[in-house]
Amino acid sequence: MAFEERLQAAAEATEAALDRFLPTEGAAPGSIAEAMRYAALGGGKRFRPFLVLESARLFAGPAEAALNVAAAFECVHCYSLVHDDLPAMDDDDMRRGRPTVHKAFDEATAILAGDALLTLAFEILGDAGTRADPQVRADLVLCLARASGAAGMVGGQALDLAAEKRALDEPEIVRLQAMKTGALIAASCEAGAIVAGASGDDRARLRRYGEIIGAAFQLADDLLDVAGDAAAVGKRTGKDAERGKATLVSIHGEDWARARLDELVQEASAVLDTFGVKASVLREAPRFVAERTS
Amino acid sequence: MAFEERLQAAAEATEAALDRFLPTEGAAPGSIAEAMRYAALGGGKRFRPFLVLESARLFAGPAEAALNVAAAFECVHCYSLVHDDLPAMDDDDMRRGRPTVHKAFDEATAILAGDALLTLAFEILGDAGTRADPQVRADLVLCLARASGAAGMVGGQALDLAAEKRALDEPEIVRLQAMKTGALIAASCEAGAIVAGASGDDRARLRRYGEIIGAAFQLADDLLDVAGDAAAVGKRTGKDAERGKATLVSIHGEDWARARLDELVQEASAVLDTFGVKASVLREAPRFVAERTS
Repeated sequence: MAFEERLQAAAEATEAALDRFLPTEGAAPGSIAEAMRYAALGGGKRFRPFLVLESARLFAGPAEAALNVAAAFECVHCYSLVHDDLPAMDDDDMRRGRPTVHKAFDEATAILAGDALLTLAFEILGDAGTRADPQVRADLVLCLARASGAAGMVGGQALDLAAEKRALDEPEIVRLQAMKTGALIAASCEAGAIVAGASGDDRARLRRYGEIIGAAFQLADDLLDVAGDAAAVGKRTGKDAERGKATLVSIHGEDWARARLDELVQEASAVLDTFGVKASVLREAPRFVAERTS
Repeated sequence: MAFEERLQAAAEATEAALDRFLPTEGAAPGSIAEAMRYAALGGGKRFRPFLVLESARLFAGPAEAALNVAAAFECVHCYSLVHDDLPAMDDDDMRRGRPTVHKAFDEATAILAGDALLTLAFEILGDAGTRADPQVRADLVLCLARASGAAGMVGGQALDLAAEKRALDEPEIVRLQAMKTGALIAASCEAGAIVAGASGDDRARLRRYGEIIGAAFQLADDLLDVAGDAAAVGKRTGKDAERGKATLVSIHGEDWARARLDELVQEASAVLDTFGVKASVLREAPRFVAERTS
């Protein structure tokens, strides 16, 4: 099946690109390089890189430049996991079936490795070696920074921590998820369009597609936390209920959530109608997100 | 005196620029915006912004664009202080005479506010609103990222933490300081040249000047830790000795350090000879660094 093959190919290409960009052990002091590699290599579905690559491919974008952008976005995703897992944050010991970075190394190393991964993402985007023209590189930096900062992913994590102290209402939950998960996923889709030199309208279309995918992704994640198997998921489940954290699933129930997921799959697909058969791989992504079990 | 006036003017302009770029309270969730503003506003000598601005002025660079770059570099400096002060790192309670961010807020907020400040720096540089052309913006992103990442500031902090576990030898100490303090200071000087469109030779010259300034800055810092007054310095002193951390001052003594500082002041000045009287303000910077008491 085309979709799974493309996802697998994207994961392999991203792993190789990250391996090239990450410092080698000994090149950076202490255990920083080792911790960065531990955090970024050897795991993950590489879903954001897949979105970058397929969005770029939709507009016949340059494959090498797109791959570098994909690696940059994955660095930001990996950094966010390392920091979110810290004791002061979500305090998680396991991630992708392995000890989290602060468990495998120590807290200071985890903080620094996360900082270094975030910085590396921008180094990759700023570098002329990424083979994108300067205007594209500057646009990509802005796209990634906006998705990652206080108005994006970091802000979403802050809201998520606040949610442990007081129950959020539904609009707040939707906002939290749009920031914490949705912003980087939407930016990944837009970044593929940017690196391919797509028009402003097409950039907006891919961003909209990514926003819907992000909402589906988070809804699926909330369902997994309720109904998933910890061994398959690779991390602890049942965390939301344990922490009294409201989610759309806890508010509306699992049946509603599954029906809403189906709607989102349709909506995402509809956004891509204008691209016809060229978008067939991207059109399968929401279904994959909705049906994932880990 | 011209130097102190320029430093003061740079500090005021940077404060105003940061105030514009930082999210306002309520714009970002939880206390993130508040913590970012607490970390970045109302304190600091703004020495890195001063270096960006004066380096740009040396080549008649555009003042508004240079100021935005200066603010971006200060964001990175402030983020590094917030993360370095964390309990898992240097565990400091006071900074610039006020409680550190994790004391005034909490640890999670400090980690996230640091992450958001780092991200904001790249958002500023990537934004067309900074009024620099795309090639300049991409070059600035690369310059800042290289100075800040695993091979720069983050790597230096990792070496510094390693130094608490085993005594570093002199070459390692020099490397640590070049990475932890020197890299961002050197990059600030180079960034001023970049935003002004200076030649490659002049960029290299400013970078060299910045490296020397960085070495002087760190030597003065080590002297302050030995001989400074905590109230004037605004943070705890005597930390290096207490932690058994070797510095060039502990190896060679205070007299040697003061003589070495004088040499560095001469060297930095000599690098600027080619620019004649235009560089008179920058030529005073190393003297200021060497003689600072806080």
